Amino acid sequence: MRFAAFAALGVLAACQTIPAFAEPPADREAQVLATARALADAGKTDEVGLQFVEDLTTEIGPRLAGSPDEQRARDWAVARLKAMGFANVHVEDFTVPYWKRTHETARVVGASAQPLIITALGGSAPTPEGGLEAGIVRFDVMADLIAADDADVAGKIVFIDEMMTRTQTGDGYGLAVAKRAACPKIAAAKGAVACLIRSVGTDHFRRPHTGGIDRRGPDGIAKPIGPIPAAALSAPDADQLTRLLARGPVSVNLDIGVETADAAPSGNVIAEVEGGARKDEIVLIGCHLDSWDLGTGAIDDGAGCGIIVGAAKLIDELPGKPERTIRVVLYGSEEIGLFGGDAYARQHSEDLGSHVLAAESDHGASYVWQFQTKFGDGALDYAKKMQDVLARYGVAAGDNLSGGGPDVGVLARSGVPVVTPAQNGWDYFDYHHTPDDTFDKIVPDEFRQNVSVYAAFAYIAADSGWDFRKAADPAE
Amino acid sequence: MRFAAFAALGVLAACQTIPAFAEPPADREAQVLATARALADAGKTDEVGLQFVEDLTTEIGPRLAGSPDEQRARDWAVARLKAMGFANVHVEDFTVPYWKRTHETARVVGASAQPLIITALGGSAPTPEGGLEAGIVRFDVMADLIAADDADVAGKIVFIDEMMTRTQTGDGYGLAVAKRAACPKIAAAKGAVACLIRSVGTDHFRRPHTGGIDRRGPDGIAKPIGPIPAAALSAPDADQLTRLLARGPVSVNLDIGVETADAAPSGNVIAEVEGGARKDEIVLIGCHLDSWDLGTGAIDDGAGCGIIVGAAKLIDELPGKPERTIRVVLYGSEEIGLFGGDAYARQHSEDLGSHVLAAESDHGASYVWQFQTKFGDGALDYAKKMQDVLARYGVAAGDNLSGGGPDVGVLARSGVPVVTPAQNGWDYFDYHHTPDDTFDKIVPDEFRQNVSVYAAFAYIAADSGWDFRKAADPAE
Repeated sequence: MRFAAFAALGVLAACQTIPAFAEPPADREAQVLATARALADAGKTDEVGLQFVEDLTTEIGPRLAGSPDEQRARDWAVARLKAMGFANVHVEDFTVPYWKRTHETARVVGASAQPLIITALGGSAPTPEGGLEAGIVRFDVMADLIAADDADVAGKIVFIDEMMTRTQTGDGYGLAVAKRAACPKIAAAKGAVACLIRSVGTDHFRRPHTGGIDRRGPDGIAKPIGPIPAAALSAPDADQLTRLLARGPVSVNLDIGVETADAAPSGNVIAEVEGGARKDEIVLIGCHLDSWDLGTGAIDDGAGCGIIVGAAKLIDELPGKPERTIRVVLYGSEEIGLFGGDAYARQHSEDLGSHVLAAESDHGASYVWQFQTKFGDGALDYAKKMQDVLARYGVAAGDNLSGGGPDVGVLARSGVPVVTPAQNGWDYFDYHHTPDDTFDKIVPDEFRQNVSVYAAFAYIAADSGWDFRKAADPAE
Repeated sequence: MRFAAFAALGVLAACQTIPAFAEPPADREAQVLATARALADAGKTDEVGLQFVEDLTTEIGPRLAGSPDEQRARDWAVARLKAMGFANVHVEDFTVPYWKRTHETARVVGASAQPLIITALGGSAPTPEGGLEAGIVRFDVMADLIAADDADVAGKIVFIDEMMTRTQTGDGYGLAVAKRAACPKIAAAKGAVACLIRSVGTDHFRRPHTGGIDRRGPDGIAKPIGPIPAAALSAPDADQLTRLLARGPVSVNLDIGVETADAAPSGNVIAEVEGGARKDEIVLIGCHLDSWDLGTGAIDDGAGCGIIVGAAKLIDELPGKPERTIRVVLYGSEEIGLFGGDAYARQHSEDLGSHVLAAESDHGASYVWQFQTKFGDGALDYAKKMQDVLARYGVAAGDNLSGGGPDVGVLARSGVPVVTPAQNGWDYFDYHHTPDDTFDKIVPDEFRQNVSVYAAFAYIAADSGWDFRKAADPAE
């Protein structure tokens, strides 16, 4: 399938032999856009990207930031990307604070004794050996915790039952995740002994969603653990706890164990489709290689890595290389605080000016429904031309307010033009940060549409010569 | 809601004041069938049955056979049924072999080291401390294991990857469950060190399905544990293991701990709506009170208990009692081998002849779509008359081949007429025997239709005087 499709692409790109394309495009721009369409068409039957995800999630499995598993994943990715023929494959190292769960249980004590299914949040402090036992104080939403009297919270386990709204855009996450990040600090400041939150997720199954907490110390630097133990309840367990509290006071035994290290190895894996005439100009497409420990990191973010690797490989197989270099970045340690993105920006601070465009795939494997940009005001025509190509693949035009995504956001804030191929997030948060982030949750044809989109816009960015920073012409 | 509905029912049953029913029914049978319809109508807004399930699953939670939790559930049920005004509330004791999991982990070892999510099967032997490690030998279906050479199995962990088919009737279970029950014995006989099965379930989430194995010894008597350790993989984990095996040999470390006892207390909780003129004749409606330990036993089988209790309570509130006694039986220790049903049949062996009808609700909380019977050939008209009433509530007529269900099957085999209100089982095996067997999985209006059905047929059986054993008239 893969090579048959590509043979056709080679023909299309050359535009020599197929009657409907008998005349070569009149100008360079039309030729670039035609090749972008041919790449996107080839993406529809791509097997390379999906195989990358299957192999990564099967042969490596979970890839916790800073762990030996993440190291295995880097070694695996380097070997795979070299074998695929990419240029300049290497790792750029950095270190991260390390946190790993060793055990986690919660149990209602007393007359209605029963287990509650929890998962510790990344950066949770451990409990004393054998667990801690305390009464529960429940809040509908985090705002109510913030407003609470210290006396009502001190000595208690805080329980924030705030729900997350299902949306196509994933916007429900920004609101709901605040309680996950902030609960430990806010609760600890009021004297609470631990934090429980309703999982940040949209499902109703008994497998809670992990995720990081804010573990920066007063110096602003991230530590391995935050101030108090913190865990997420599955939605049915949050409901059960709320039903029990409706019947009277509830005490819970919470038992969490962790291993930590102040500094553990991590790194960004880099590979390139080396450009021609403008090879020092970089089109960066990224994903993150690390995952939470519970699942195998398929939708978060093995899929993103498969999408950008598949797209880059399609471009790499073109008869001629694009003028600019396409740089594939598999970021490390995204989940625990965007360490890979920060390290990249720091390590490349001198040449960010040569980054002509950056984008990141980190919202699952469902289809792209909108193409957002953040270009200079004089480059909006370029956005329009990209969007016109992508419209053929079901992608709506977006605004010019893209933030670039988690690891690429730091580049956007440094002035690098970015795009966001916005993926459908309808069921992403059913699986996100759970054991069910596994390969079977990827719908192959939706995944492939992403490969089409990334191949098309990355190729255009690399071979059009366009300046996406371009300011508006003051004369206009 | 509840009492308002019932005030209307009282009026309907008396058939005195509503113009459309101004004339009392011409004969006794028509009056019984009209009252059955009024009961079923009242079931549509019943809150008693659903509250019973919510309270049981919230205040008690999991109720493992033979455990202190099951004892708490019996105490709770006795208190609740007495408070509801039922007659002759009591427990009939028996003992069961006891098995409880203490820990369960599985981990692929070697280059692709990663956890697999498992749950021990009820009756699994423990592994040695620290687990056992062995190579995996995979079989598509149990038939292939049976056909395998001992030499290919000895010293290995057997993995049966057989899938279960989703059906409305639940018939996929009978086929798929065979591997769960039989794998340990068959594999052990061939020298395997452990059994792993793909979960007996229709979902694709990472929470495996537990369930019992055949743990009868050579004497035919159930022991606390079977011959070797046995566990179920979730469907995604079974797929992952199969993908890994496609890449080469796989070894797994399996670590299972259990607590056991040769005899632990269990019992059947009994309550009655005491009859009038024929009070020694019994209409038995049953469910099981125990559950697996992973969920809170809402659909299996808290719902069944709520349905029969709700239905019995509707009948109990009629202005006049039915002639026969309606006996509600909350069986104990169903899950580990139908111990409650067997104990009931043994303890009531002298008076099974006075059981005029028996039925059991143990297939979730979804709606009844068919009404099956097993009556004498001369009593098929009675089946038709019941079915005509139930047709008003969306229930199709069934055959006369009902087996009665798990705990009631023993009564059917002893000649007691039985009915099976067949529930929709489309998604039952998505949750069955998993942590997600929780209250939120019950759809209230589907649950209430069950209350309607049970109230209607149980009342007809109790107040019609019909003999469901009646043989065909040889003259006809």
